[in-house]
Amino acid sequence: MKKLINAPEAVLAEALSGIAAAHPGLKVDAENKVIARALGTKPGKVALVSGGGSGHEPLHGGFVGKGMLDAACPGEVFTSPVPGQMLAAAQAVDGGVGVLFIVKNYTGDVLNFQMAAELAAEEGITVETVLVDDDVAVQDSTWTAGRRGTGATVFVEKIAGALAEQGGSLTEVADMGKRVNAASRSFAVALTACTTPASGKPGFDLPEDEMEVGVGIHGEPGRRREKLRPAKEIVATALDAILADQPLVAGDETIVMVNGLGGTPLIELYVVFNEVAAALADKGVVVARSLVGNYVTSLDMEGVSLTVCKADADMLSLWDAPVNTPALRWGI
Amino acid sequence: MKKLINAPEAVLAEALSGIAAAHPGLKVDAENKVIARALGTKPGKVALVSGGGSGHEPLHGGFVGKGMLDAACPGEVFTSPVPGQMLAAAQAVDGGVGVLFIVKNYTGDVLNFQMAAELAAEEGITVETVLVDDDVAVQDSTWTAGRRGTGATVFVEKIAGALAEQGGSLTEVADMGKRVNAASRSFAVALTACTTPASGKPGFDLPEDEMEVGVGIHGEPGRRREKLRPAKEIVATALDAILADQPLVAGDETIVMVNGLGGTPLIELYVVFNEVAAALADKGVVVARSLVGNYVTSLDMEGVSLTVCKADADMLSLWDAPVNTPALRWGI
Repeated sequence: MKKLINAPEAVLAEALSGIAAAHPGLKVDAENKVIARALGTKPGKVALVSGGGSGHEPLHGGFVGKGMLDAACPGEVFTSPVPGQMLAAAQAVDGGVGVLFIVKNYTGDVLNFQMAAELAAEEGITVETVLVDDDVAVQDSTWTAGRRGTGATVFVEKIAGALAEQGGSLTEVADMGKRVNAASRSFAVALTACTTPASGKPGFDLPEDEMEVGVGIHGEPGRRREKLRPAKEIVATALDAILADQPLVAGDETIVMVNGLGGTPLIELYVVFNEVAAALADKGVVVARSLVGNYVTSLDMEGVSLTVCKADADMLSLWDAPVNTPALRWGI
Repeated sequence: MKKLINAPEAVLAEALSGIAAAHPGLKVDAENKVIARALGTKPGKVALVSGGGSGHEPLHGGFVGKGMLDAACPGEVFTSPVPGQMLAAAQAVDGGVGVLFIVKNYTGDVLNFQMAAELAAEEGITVETVLVDDDVAVQDSTWTAGRRGTGATVFVEKIAGALAEQGGSLTEVADMGKRVNAASRSFAVALTACTTPASGKPGFDLPEDEMEVGVGIHGEPGRRREKLRPAKEIVATALDAILADQPLVAGDETIVMVNGLGGTPLIELYVVFNEVAAALADKGVVVARSLVGNYVTSLDMEGVSLTVCKADADMLSLWDAPVNTPALRWGI
């Protein structure tokens, strides 16, 4: 294993310390492992809290800031954060009108956020939850009952976060988050496995000429192994899976993310985006907004995920609203 | 080789097409391979043009936009762009008061930008050049006489770009670019080699337990091979090399970049930044501004580069000025 670390067990704490040093707009509670906005939550604003295992950076800490999350709870690498951590986050950022938990659909995360919601209720904090389950590759998976939550998390956090910033109520913000999730589909392909600091070796074997089609963000198995194919055919496979689940017709507007899994050069992501844009244009589908880069990673995995959100005018307007986080920043 | 591409020889053209599709604020001249601002140059503004081999994304195309570059000329992967391409860029963006070429110190780039400057002069366009040579690892290298140009390029493009936006003259903008380069030092470490699409195999062999200390952004040899060490010791090595060349004293303000070479997870870059911040704090050196992420990459290489700029008040103020590019965006 080759990693730029000091010790596997110190990675999360040291990375959190680095995040605190790099981003004056954030404050890090090292004891509870909570990343929050330095300025706190304005009273009367719905607070958004997300979290999950580390190793998917910039998710979620890189999306804390004005117009997006109020706090993030990073677990150890590929490990759910714990309920106490989520409760501490909720208590730290509650502005008196409730907290929205944004939870990727993995069994550990779901259970722990559920328990945290109950603990928060005992403390008088109202919690609503949006469960993100956008990955169409498989129905159930290694760590998930039902579909896995992946790239759509970024869309949910951005759009619901903007609505909260504009004064939306907890119900309104939660409903918008659910709408975005319901409108979004993802599909990923891995060219290599990733290596966690703790295990020190690749999570699975993948022959030199094969790819994992429909891989999960922890390297969970997808639909099948296949010989590596040209980007155009990989994109066709991913888009077919996405559109089979949520058909799009000419004139539909979309937000599209071509997301690198951590080890893929940006120049390749643009090659992939070029194919996505061309394929959608062929169908008359409009790519109204897009992201190309590393947003929901799997440590050093080489590969790409495609997320397509069928966006209505509200979503597009909220997408364009100002945001000021380490990983997404515009309008401010 | 595992890459998300269609064909090695099509990578650049297809990536450029993807960049055009993803970024409405940019326009791409596919024939000349020039990325420019969609809105063009305001008459009377000094235009900044940079370029170099592809494979270092988001450099340079990702830094085209208000407050930074006016145009970028990407060559084939790890190959200098050609003079005609640079001339086309200069002609496209000249606002009537001259063009600044920002050139990383590699022999091919230097010769081709020099020829382009002569061709531009024949067309009546005044050109000044800033040569970036910040890499303290080695004095001469595979493709370079003198020091290589690496991470400081981002600082030069940002700070000189801001001054141009504020109405600086060609001489003033060029002088500021030179000041930033003179104030900046970089040092990089590779854990793995990178693989170009054309060659299809790693550029060099690096045993499973070793790192290349002082590597160049194309995988050029550094100072030595060493056993892989903890992040804290790697940072000490890099900082020692940087500070030996440009001493810093307590109270000095700096802009610091911890840059991933393409295949390194962001969580590791934060572990590295944590060590850099601690080491500089020990000396009383102030990290006034920072970047942590992939800014000057070497395709899929795992590793990190550290760039430190000893920044004066002018540089910090220009750093904070609004910028709106795919890879750096704030204040707008």
